[in-house]
Amino acid sequence: METSIAGTEGQAIRCKAAVAWEAGKPLSIEEVEVAPPKAHEVRIKVVATGVCHTDWEYLYENKKGMRFRPFPLVLGHEAAGVVESVGPQVTKFAAGDQVIPLFLPQCQECDRCLSPKTNLCKRNWAKTQVGVLADGTSRISCKRQQIYQFLGVSSFSQYTVVPDTSLAKINSNAPLDKVFLLGCGVSTGYGAALKTGKVEKDSVCAVFGLGAVGLAAVMGCKAAGAKTIIGVDVNPNKFEKARMLGATECVNPSDYSKSIQESAALESTTDAWGVCVIAGWTETESMSVVVEKLLMGRTLTGTYFGGWKSVDGVFKLVEDYMEKKLKLDEFITHDLPLNQINQAFETLKSGTSIRTLIRLWEEEAPTEEVTS
Amino acid sequence: METSIAGTEGQAIRCKAAVAWEAGKPLSIEEVEVAPPKAHEVRIKVVATGVCHTDWEYLYENKKGMRFRPFPLVLGHEAAGVVESVGPQVTKFAAGDQVIPLFLPQCQECDRCLSPKTNLCKRNWAKTQVGVLADGTSRISCKRQQIYQFLGVSSFSQYTVVPDTSLAKINSNAPLDKVFLLGCGVSTGYGAALKTGKVEKDSVCAVFGLGAVGLAAVMGCKAAGAKTIIGVDVNPNKFEKARMLGATECVNPSDYSKSIQESAALESTTDAWGVCVIAGWTETESMSVVVEKLLMGRTLTGTYFGGWKSVDGVFKLVEDYMEKKLKLDEFITHDLPLNQINQAFETLKSGTSIRTLIRLWEEEAPTEEVTS
Repeated sequence: METSIAGTEGQAIRCKAAVAWEAGKPLSIEEVEVAPPKAHEVRIKVVATGVCHTDWEYLYENKKGMRFRPFPLVLGHEAAGVVESVGPQVTKFAAGDQVIPLFLPQCQECDRCLSPKTNLCKRNWAKTQVGVLADGTSRISCKRQQIYQFLGVSSFSQYTVVPDTSLAKINSNAPLDKVFLLGCGVSTGYGAALKTGKVEKDSVCAVFGLGAVGLAAVMGCKAAGAKTIIGVDVNPNKFEKARMLGATECVNPSDYSKSIQESAALESTTDAWGVCVIAGWTETESMSVVVEKLLMGRTLTGTYFGGWKSVDGVFKLVEDYMEKKLKLDEFITHDLPLNQINQAFETLKSGTSIRTLIRLWEEEAPTEEVTS
Repeated sequence: METSIAGTEGQAIRCKAAVAWEAGKPLSIEEVEVAPPKAHEVRIKVVATGVCHTDWEYLYENKKGMRFRPFPLVLGHEAAGVVESVGPQVTKFAAGDQVIPLFLPQCQECDRCLSPKTNLCKRNWAKTQVGVLADGTSRISCKRQQIYQFLGVSSFSQYTVVPDTSLAKINSNAPLDKVFLLGCGVSTGYGAALKTGKVEKDSVCAVFGLGAVGLAAVMGCKAAGAKTIIGVDVNPNKFEKARMLGATECVNPSDYSKSIQESAALESTTDAWGVCVIAGWTETESMSVVVEKLLMGRTLTGTYFGGWKSVDGVFKLVEDYMEKKLKLDEFITHDLPLNQINQAFETLKSGTSIRTLIRLWEEEAPTEEVTS
C-alpha cells in the first residue's frame, strides 16, 4: 500500500468510476475527472468499496416514492481508502492517511455532536443529501457534465472528494479490503444491537432479516452477551453465516402457515420492557402498530449508522477488528473488480451475496473463489 | 372520617352500587351484597371515585373490538376509601387504614416487581381482567346474581373487596375526595411525562389531548422543568386549565386547514432524540408510523399507570400532594352523589368535565358549584 501519492496534488485526476447515468439502468464504467479538494475537503483514493442495498434502492427504486436525487450520479457509500491530498484549512488529515469516508458527518462542534443522545450531526447534510458538497457542486465530472456524489461520498470511483467532517482516520495497518465494511452495513447492525437496542447480558433477541445489517446485529447481540439470538429470514441460505456470527437458532417464516405480519418484530418483544430497533434505510415504508403493544411496555425506535458518532465510532470499530473483537471477513462473500460491479448488484438482489467487495484498482476477479 | 368500622367484619354487607347490567345501557343504582374478604383480600369502604374514560369505553364501546368482559359489572377503578376489614393472611392492612385501590398490582415479589425496567406486575392479572378475584369469583352480588368486578376494583360500589397486592396504604390525613384521582388518570399522565418520557429540564414538550391524563402530563412536564409545554386539543375549553397546570401555549388543530394526522404526536418530536409516549388505554386503535421518522432518532413508546410501581408510586404521589408538590383539586370540575353517576358519564363524553368526583355516601349534590 503506498503511503503518499505524489504529483497529483492541486490538479484534477482522471480515473475510472461506475456512473449511474439514469435511474433503473445498470452502471457504466467511465473515465471521470475528480477535481482537487476545496477548503475543508479531502481527496481520497478509494481502495475498496461494498455494494449496499441502499445503493440498489437509489438506482432501481428511485421513482417509487423516494426523495428526488439528481442523476447522473456516482453511487457507493461504504468504502475505505487513502488520503491523496487535502484542501485548505484541513488540519486532521494528511496524504497517506488510511481513512473511511462517512455518509454521516461528525463535526465535533454542533449541539448534536456535543449531546450524548444522538449521532445525527447535520454538517453539510442538506447538500450531501442532494449529491453535492458544501459549495453546492460536485467534484466529479464526466464528459464535461457534473456527476452528483451519492450522500457526498461516491465510492464507486477510484478517487473522490469528501468533507473533512465526513471522514474517519483509521489504524494505518488496517486491511482496507476488510474494514470498508465499517462504512455502513456492519456498523449499522452492530450498533443497532449494542448502542440503540442496548441489548443486555442473558437477554433474548430476535433479528429480522439476515443481510449484512442483520448479521452484524446478530454479532452485536452476541457481543452484548445475549443468551438466545434468533435469526429470522425467508432465505435459509443466510442461516449458516448467522450461526457462525452468534445466532443460537434460525427461523424461516415461510415454514409456518401463520403469516408473520409487518409488525412482527415489535410484537415478538416482551410486553413489559421489549425494545424493537429498526435499522437500514427506507423512505417509502410505513408500518402499522397496535397501540396496546406500546401501552404494555414495548418501545419502538430506529437507528441510523447504528447510533455511532461516525468519526469516533468507526475509528474504535476498526481497532476492535484489529484486536479480533469484531468479525468482518465473514461478511464478504464475493470479490470483484470495479468493471464487474453490475454483477454485485445482481447477486445482492438475488440474495446470494452478503457483501461483495469491489476492488477499485483491479482489472480482473481473483482466480480463487471467496470461501469465508 | 371514621377510622374503624365495627360490627360488619366477617359478614356480608348490603350497600348501594351502580350496576352495569348490560353494555351500552346507563348504570342502575341497586342494593348489592358485598361478601367478606377471603385470604389475601381486603374489603374497603369506598368514599370517593372518579369516572374515567375507560369506564365509559367498557360500557359504551364494549362491542367494538374490545376484549370481552362479562356483564353484569360494577365499573369504577379510580377511587379512595378506608379499610373495613381484612381477610386471612393479610399483614399490611388493618381496619381504618386510608387506601387507594389499584387496577395494576405490585406484589413486591415477582420478576417484574424486582426489575427497575417495568411496573407491569401480573399478580392476579388474568383474573382481574375478566372481572373476578383470585378464586375465580367476584365478591359482589345483586338479586342472587354474581356481579363482575371491573379490573378487580369496582369502585362504583359503597363497599368492594380487592386483592391485598392491589391496594396502596396512604397518608391517614389525605383528603380522600381529592387523592382518589391518583388511582388512575393523574398518576398515568404525570408519570407518562416524568417516568416514561423522562422529560428533561429546558426541553420542549407537546401534550396531545387535554383530558385528565393529558393535563396531568402537562403538570409532569412542568415538574420536570420543561421550557415550552404545548397543549393540543380540539376542545379549546380545556386550554384555561392546561395553562393553570403549566402549558405555555395551547393549539387547537381545528384552527388550521392542514390536518393533524394520526401520527402527529410522533412526527412533532425532534428527529434526533424525540420521544413520543402514548398514555391512556385502548384495545382497538392502531397507528401508522413512517419508518423514516424512527430511523432518524425518534422513539415511540407507551405507558401503563404512568410507569409507577403502583403501591409505592401512589403512596409517594399522595405525599407529594400533601406537601403541595402536586396539584389535584384543579382536576375536579364536577361533584355528584352516586345516584347521579350517569350524569358524570354524559359530561365526560360531551367534554365539559375533566373529572367528576362521585361521593359514594352522599344523597344529594352539593349546593355550591365547583369553581376550581
